[in-house]
Amino acid sequence: MNMKVAIIMGSTSDLPVMQDAIDILKELQIETEVDVVSAHRTPEKMFEFGQNAHKKGIAVIIAGAGGAAHLPGMVASLSPLPVIGVPVKSSNSIDGWDSVLSILQMPGGVPVATVALNGAKNAGILAAQILGATQEDVRDRIIAYKESLKEKVTQAAAQMRHE
Amino acid sequence: MNMKVAIIMGSTSDLPVMQDAIDILKELQIETEVDVVSAHRTPEKMFEFGQNAHKKGIAVIIAGAGGAAHLPGMVASLSPLPVIGVPVKSSNSIDGWDSVLSILQMPGGVPVATVALNGAKNAGILAAQILGATQEDVRDRIIAYKESLKEKVTQAAAQMRHE
Amino acid sequence: MNMKVAIIMGSTSDLPVMQDAIDILKELQIETEVDVVSAHRTPEKMFEFGQNAHKKGIAVIIAGAGGAAHLPGMVASLSPLPVIGVPVKSSNSIDGWDSVLSILQMPGGVPVATVALNGAKNAGILAAQILGATQEDVRDRIIAYKESLKEKVTQAAAQMRHE
Amino acid sequence: MNMKVAIIMGSTSDLPVMQDAIDILKELQIETEVDVVSAHRTPEKMFEFGQNAHKKGIAVIIAGAGGAAHLPGMVASLSPLPVIGVPVKSSNSIDGWDSVLSILQMPGGVPVATVALNGAKNAGILAAQILGATQEDVRDRIIAYKESLKEKVTQAAAQMRHE
Amino acid sequence: MNMKVAIIMGSTSDLPVMQDAIDILKELQIETEVDVVSAHRTPEKMFEFGQNAHKKGIAVIIAGAGGAAHLPGMVASLSPLPVIGVPVKSSNSIDGWDSVLSILQMPGGVPVATVALNGAKNAGILAAQILGATQEDVRDRIIAYKESLKEKVTQAAAQMRHE
Amino acid sequence: MNMKVAIIMGSTSDLPVMQDAIDILKELQIETEVDVVSAHRTPEKMFEFGQNAHKKGIAVIIAGAGGAAHLPGMVASLSPLPVIGVPVKSSNSIDGWDSVLSILQMPGGVPVATVALNGAKNAGILAAQILGATQEDVRDRIIAYKESLKEKVTQAAAQMRHE
Amino acid sequence: MNMKVAIIMGSTSDLPVMQDAIDILKELQIETEVDVVSAHRTPEKMFEFGQNAHKKGIAVIIAGAGGAAHLPGMVASLSPLPVIGVPVKSSNSIDGWDSVLSILQMPGGVPVATVALNGAKNAGILAAQILGATQEDVRDRIIAYKESLKEKVTQAAAQMRHE
Amino acid sequence: MNMKVAIIMGSTSDLPVMQDAIDILKELQIETEVDVVSAHRTPEKMFEFGQNAHKKGIAVIIAGAGGAAHLPGMVASLSPLPVIGVPVKSSNSIDGWDSVLSILQMPGGVPVATVALNGAKNAGILAAQILGATQEDVRDRIIAYKESLKEKVTQAAAQMRHE
Repeated sequence: MNMKVAIIMGSTSDLPVMQDAIDILKELQIETEVDVVSAHRTPEKMFEFGQNAHKKGIAVIIAGAGGAAHLPGMVASLSPLPVIGVPVKSSNSIDGWDSVLSILQMPGGVPVATVALNGAKNAGILAAQILGATQEDVRDRIIAYKESLKEKVTQAAAQMRHE
Repeated sequence: MNMKVAIIMGSTSDLPVMQDAIDILKELQIETEVDVVSAHRTPEKMFEFGQNAHKKGIAVIIAGAGGAAHLPGMVASLSPLPVIGVPVKSSNSIDGWDSVLSILQMPGGVPVATVALNGAKNAGILAAQILGATQEDVRDRIIAYKESLKEKVTQAAAQMRHE
Repeated sequence: MNMKVAIIMGSTSDLPVMQDAIDILKELQIETEVDVVSAHRTPEKMFEFGQNAHKKGIAVIIAGAGGAAHLPGMVASLSPLPVIGVPVKSSNSIDGWDSVLSILQMPGGVPVATVALNGAKNAGILAAQILGATQEDVRDRIIAYKESLKEKVTQAAAQMRHE
Repeated sequence: MNMKVAIIMGSTSDLPVMQDAIDILKELQIETEVDVVSAHRTPEKMFEFGQNAHKKGIAVIIAGAGGAAHLPGMVASLSPLPVIGVPVKSSNSIDGWDSVLSILQMPGGVPVATVALNGAKNAGILAAQILGATQEDVRDRIIAYKESLKEKVTQAAAQMRHE
Repeated sequence: MNMKVAIIMGSTSDLPVMQDAIDILKELQIETEVDVVSAHRTPEKMFEFGQNAHKKGIAVIIAGAGGAAHLPGMVASLSPLPVIGVPVKSSNSIDGWDSVLSILQMPGGVPVATVALNGAKNAGILAAQILGATQEDVRDRIIAYKESLKEKVTQAAAQMRHE
Repeated sequence: MNMKVAIIMGSTSDLPVMQDAIDILKELQIETEVDVVSAHRTPEKMFEFGQNAHKKGIAVIIAGAGGAAHLPGMVASLSPLPVIGVPVKSSNSIDGWDSVLSILQMPGGVPVATVALNGAKNAGILAAQILGATQEDVRDRIIAYKESLKEKVTQAAAQMRHE
Repeated sequence: MNMKVAIIMGSTSDLPVMQDAIDILKELQIETEVDVVSAHRTPEKMFEFGQNAHKKGIAVIIAGAGGAAHLPGMVASLSPLPVIGVPVKSSNSIDGWDSVLSILQMPGGVPVATVALNGAKNAGILAAQILGATQEDVRDRIIAYKESLKEKVTQAAAQMRHE
Repeated sequence: MNMKVAIIMGSTSDLPVMQDAIDILKELQIETEVDVVSAHRTPEKMFEFGQNAHKKGIAVIIAGAGGAAHLPGMVASLSPLPVIGVPVKSSNSIDGWDSVLSILQMPGGVPVATVALNGAKNAGILAAQILGATQEDVRDRIIAYKESLKEKVTQAAAQMRHE
């Protein structure tokens, strides 16, 4: 059964943002594979990746890109797998609006599961939730993770009240 | 194993948009359950729904809402399941920006898989893809569906050239 | 009679902004209570808070949050008290638009009294004005406060003309 | 004790929107007084109104205006009472953004409690909540009103499931 | 020498907008070829088109698409020819911003010559200007066309003054 | 005959921006008077200023303000003189949009001559052009000033080409 | 002395909007001259107009244009007279933002006095105020006009209260 | 045959952005000529340039400008050559939106080939592609350039995987 999460990005400059997805998936004990795949500079590689990902044990694809971000949508057009898009606020972006809209506003038939601007951490959690949708052990790890979030906020709140 | 998709919406006025999700899931032979759950007017019901959905055979939640759309994010905070958010362009919305941003821009730890404005059809397809991430028979139906999309475009193109 | 103002925020990282509300209410001699309540990470605590605030001497709630800011609206859905929402411009916000729209654009039936982006000071003043709507002694302090604002501008203007 | 709510608007063309505030306050048994006060065409009347409202039994002011909407903010600068601003989407407005921003983004010291674009109904409810902050009988009517909202949604949901 | 202009669009629903490009190029006596090529539904066809257009006598490509419009940018990534992008304001577009930004904001290395929202006529003229950059006879037709524009405005102005 | 230009601003913090208006008017030999007049903190002073400016030798009013900028529009409502509005990008502004829209989008009957965000220099030049509309000596200084602009650009261009 | 107001527009299709300027100036007894001058289709005419307007008795120029509206700014660059820009919401405009920003955001040295979107009436009043800045008889007509505005609002308010 | 690319900009302050166009064209062995031409400060020079460029061996014009950027559109109105517009994010720009919209949204008849905000490098590549549309040797250099882009991404991806 496919259980790996692929994390691809349009440029190595997206890595500082996308690292959050890699880290949280490691924490949630999900196997990942990471690569740079540029829709605009290596379209053939992207094509090959999109058409074959589901045949190589990959269950979910996370794709991050900035500006006129076509990678998530193009991979979604090529693959039957769920694709999570991470809009990256790159240097010449118009405040991130370009990344957000060119990932989110996909036409009927080809969805991209879009997360917040620079929201790679949430992309990782969402990928785990997707595996957990049908796999109870993964879902249990999600439940434990959410419990730990609650814990942290509760402690921070307690500390703030005592200061 | 959980295999049902729940489709909830903040108001019955969202049904004309959300119907697209119901229809495409039926076409893809995925079992659905549909309800109106308002974050702001029936918060207790939403709470109960979010906390228990994964115990009732539900694998994926689709939540549609307009304006300051809190339903998808709140359900995502309460449930370990993947939540797909559909921003609905309601009558007093500011061109849909409010719905989009209040669903998309979730804080770290609590993702919502956001689709395009009024993109309920894509929400349905994404839900099927999520099931298909680990279930090969569902994935095969996705592959067939995508093939049919291609077919339609190819025919429309041929017809246009012959006119 | 309820006369306390509760100031809650989604994260301790909102405290530098929300401190302005605490300070001005102290200056206006209004009793406050402060807590971290996260809509997305501690939804049960938020629920409990929203349902019971009016039974514990609280008259007005100030809630600050950033990004897809659901705390003010959710508390407003749970409490009969007036809720003042402070959109916080958090680090991954899209220029603050997400915070503003997800607090402001509440559906009919569940208002949030929204103030300017990062406008916690005004939230504090508004809370005092709400108490002063029916309590003359509080209103007199508001009148004195507004007089002091006028004084400061007048002095600054005089100084500028003399430089 | 001041218990009246004043509802003012910049132009008679705002009445179709502002009527929602009048209606809901009537339903909640709050006394109102209604007038047209234009910041830009009758500034003296606005001045007189703002400076004296709190002396005439008024506890809360609701002010609606469109475009470069200065009425709510100017009345807030003149009165010690809480002022609720309703951004009206007028005919030459730029999609309502002008009304929203010129009401919401008040400087420190002079808050306006802003509600959603065309959200006059919520302005009325908020005005009642402000009275209810310190007046238990009003708060009880708010609690009953919120209960009725829940009822309606629950019935609509039931009906939808049975269709 | 390549002298044809290819006009492609993501969907037959874009034809009413894109027809303007076809018409003006006919008027300017430039040979065209028209097809529907969907980046998201027929990616293989798009790939084949992009990689081979310059080998088939095509000198310039005009590509129109709406929403998360990836067609112009993807074709630009695959072809060495100049690609003109026409943002189409489709039905579920967010006021056209999504189409504009996902065509305009291409990363360094892969330009798309973007024209105004729904500006297919200008795309056609620009294609002719591109041919005219090095072909004097085409440039002369452009000069004549611009002269005719001037004529029309001058006549309209004269008529208006006489009414 | 009225020949003075009044430069007013909502806060001393606007002075660094507004100084450009003072400087250019001095360069163009137009008499100025400068003051801080806050629409929201000193409304009475603003009223008095607006109603009497034309009686005190003032011909043009320049008003700068940020955020929900009501000063230019309110002064325009009170004075028969032309009012030039300078949107100031203040610290808590939403990228300047609030200042721009609350100055620009005045209702029919009460114009404000709006210049670019932080465009105080242009406000000064416009004030001089207004005087020069009917006073030839002022217009001659404008002509000379524009000539000097041309000179500077021509020299900078020459220098760039020689580097 | 120059006392005429020129009203120019980029296209005859702008006339329904620009007529408001013509009408109000007639009401205020200011002589006008009207023409269609297209920055992009009749640049030579625009040039000639801009360079000579002040020599032909014109004191103020009102220029209306939509989309990438260059007419007001270009005329301002060519003429020493004050230029009032009217952003017109034309059919393919992106909600008017393009017209507003390409008129408003002029560089230092070349102001355009921008009025609200479609605000031709205010452009006419502003032109009269500019003449009235130094001409007392015109200013008196402005004062009378503002008085009539007040009258109308007062009557409308009275009527509303009696209904 | 015309084969030169002219690169003009509204101000020397645009040079740091526009240098990218100069550099890439040098790399692609295209002859360039560079000048500062301000639409608003040297309109006569712009006129002369626009009317004569095609008579002086120039085949393509690249024009960069910020704010209310009229240079690209005005040159496009004066010249039969293809004009590429580079929106420059200048210091007082409203996040670049003004530059983008006043270059992109040209009326029917007068196209500007707009590239991304600060996208001067892409403007240079597009200019080369325009020459390459009909000149095979230039097109071959474009093909080689695109190959080199692919190479760089492939190497960066390999390096990332090995770290």
